[in-house]
Amino acid sequence: MENAKSALKSIKNLREDLPLEEIEVVLHQEAIDIALSNGEYSNLVLDLMTRDIGFAVCYNSMKARDLKSTDLIDGIKIVDAGVGEIIKLQKDGWAYLKL
Amino acid sequence: MENAKSALKSIKNLREDLPLEEIEVVLHQEAIDIALSNGEYSNLVLDLMTRDIGFAVCYNSMKARDLKSTDLIDGIKIVDAGVGEIIKLQKDGWAYLKL
Amino acid sequence: MENAKSALKSIKNLREDLPLEEIEVVLHQEAIDIALSNGEYSNLVLDLMTRDIGFAVCYNSMKARDLKSTDLIDGIKIVDAGVGEIIKLQKDGWAYLKL
Repeated sequence: MENAKSALKSIKNLREDLPLEEIEVVLHQEAIDIALSNGEYSNLVLDLMTRDIGFAVCYNSMKARDLKSTDLIDGIKIVDAGVGEIIKLQKDGWAYLKL
Repeated sequence: MENAKSALKSIKNLREDLPLEEIEVVLHQEAIDIALSNGEYSNLVLDLMTRDIGFAVCYNSMKARDLKSTDLIDGIKIVDAGVGEIIKLQKDGWAYLKL
Repeated sequence: MENAKSALKSIKNLREDLPLEEIEVVLHQEAIDIALSNGEYSNLVLDLMTRDIGFAVCYNSMKARDLKSTDLIDGIKIVDAGVGEIIKLQKDGWAYLKL
């Protein structure tokens, strides 16, 4: 991830360009900071969630940084492995975009 | 994008490896500098265009940097959102590669 | 590639999450250092290879750095172009993940 703020802006642009598409943002490694309820991006994430954009956080990455589900913004999904989630979604026909 | 020059080299390698495949390079955020007619990469881009490689630039990113279509190399396509273009191409059966 | 060590950790997590899926790691540009038999990541790569994860190295990138096949860990595949390999695998139905 180049930069959290520009990535979140790109996701907002994607929603505006594709208003009817299901969108899920999968966060892993250091990018899971974006999902922290007391983090600097929480307002941007909450805004995207109101636009029907889902967020999934990698549990492996949470363990590696000693984070608990209560540290995350309410309503964010936890998946066993972010990398596995991305593969599974493609196998289900989803397109993929790396930011 | 790690590095514009190595990315453009990879695209040239891709063309040589897949001479018959349709290839479109989608540029967004700071990578749109690659498409500037007076930019340092214009000769490399023009060379790739002669090899039947298309370029698309994100209009959201152009607005954010106050760029006009006349600032771009002739023949480069402008799309509303680079991220949306990538998703739409995959929905049409294109493969995806992030450089 | 953000970081070789975290990328290799992500690949291990992917194997654990998807024990039956075919996985191939395509290395190009500076990431081919991961495949060097005398490199700092050779033990991690060998461990992944015992977990039925394949590795492919870009020959264009090898030429650019003057590397020979004998410089690579035994059993690693060499492909003409890493970028072409990624496109071909997707055309064959594989999912794609950029680390």
